[in-house]
Amino acid sequence: MITDLDHLIGLFAKLPGFGPRSARRAVLRLVEQPEARMLPLANALLAVARNVKVCTVCGNLDTRDPCGICADPHRERDLICVVESVGDLWALERARAHHGLYHVLGGTLSAIGGTGPEDLNLASLLPRLGQGGAGELILALSATVDGAATAHWVADKVAPSGVRVTRVAQGVPMGGALDVLDDGTLAAALRARR
Amino acid sequence: MITDLDHLIGLFAKLPGFGPRSARRAVLRLVEQPEARMLPLANALLAVARNVKVCTVCGNLDTRDPCGICADPHRERDLICVVESVGDLWALERARAHHGLYHVLGGTLSAIGGTGPEDLNLASLLPRLGQGGAGELILALSATVDGAATAHWVADKVAPSGVRVTRVAQGVPMGGALDVLDDGTLAAALRARR
Repeated sequence: MITDLDHLIGLFAKLPGFGPRSARRAVLRLVEQPEARMLPLANALLAVARNVKVCTVCGNLDTRDPCGICADPHRERDLICVVESVGDLWALERARAHHGLYHVLGGTLSAIGGTGPEDLNLASLLPRLGQGGAGELILALSATVDGAATAHWVADKVAPSGVRVTRVAQGVPMGGALDVLDDGTLAAALRARR
Repeated sequence: MITDLDHLIGLFAKLPGFGPRSARRAVLRLVEQPEARMLPLANALLAVARNVKVCTVCGNLDTRDPCGICADPHRERDLICVVESVGDLWALERARAHHGLYHVLGGTLSAIGGTGPEDLNLASLLPRLGQGGAGELILALSATVDGAATAHWVADKVAPSGVRVTRVAQGVPMGGALDVLDDGTLAAALRARR
């Protein structure tokens, strides 16, 4: 009946964090102000959709290639942080936790998921270490079995280059209560005490 | 730094139900699939933004005028439900609670907000009652002071036409526990017992 609108609501409802109800609410807000809200959003989406590319250096998504981070002269170029996904990269950027460069693997090795080294963005990592003279490679991978396996594998591959390889610390999250933490995290936090 | 993307995230973050964090997550999902997700969403937004209009009959928002509801030959044309906003209309449609037509006021009378009868979509209501031979006018307005004042005002205006005016019932919401309900609702629910 309200076909164009229903189609739009359906697309919104597929976004993470959205259901049919909240999608309807968001679309209603947009449709009430077509000029002020809806067109700008449509045009911003078009601009990004047409121009987004995978950075050939690090694997980040951006409208430029190399991406804004790789092209930024103020970043420490001898410090490369290896992450699984662009979402992880964005999380680290949001936290302003890392001032070097990144390398996005696009996943982790996974025996169950059938993800092998050839499925990850690994081929370009070793050349980067050679040419840029990276002083340190930080592995910021998930604290899961697959994440740990991937970290081991990357560390092995990188070892011959002589680059220092570190991993992000495991421990109690900020604001986290000890009694709700799992045993693995507690043990890791105790072992890594300082 | 990631200007185009940041701009897009900022627009998403302004939507109801979204904050900076969830906006980033939604944009990330879109940007990972520009062809499959982002372009269709952009085009759907453009289509609606270009074509959305206020229905000259009832005040609903749709890409057609008269809107899909007013144009639907299967709706009961002698039953008109008066609502405050298009959001309320959509809520009633979602609940499939009403099979007649609507009339969207665009707000309520409000002494504090400075909303008078001339600010509401009231001028076209009385002619509709005359020509269509509406058998019943249902007032589905908020159970607030302003909503009640508006309902009284509309009922007064409509009285000379002889059309039957009803109001939606107040009472205990479905699944609602009695002990958390406010006194006003409890009293209304008791009074309207059957």
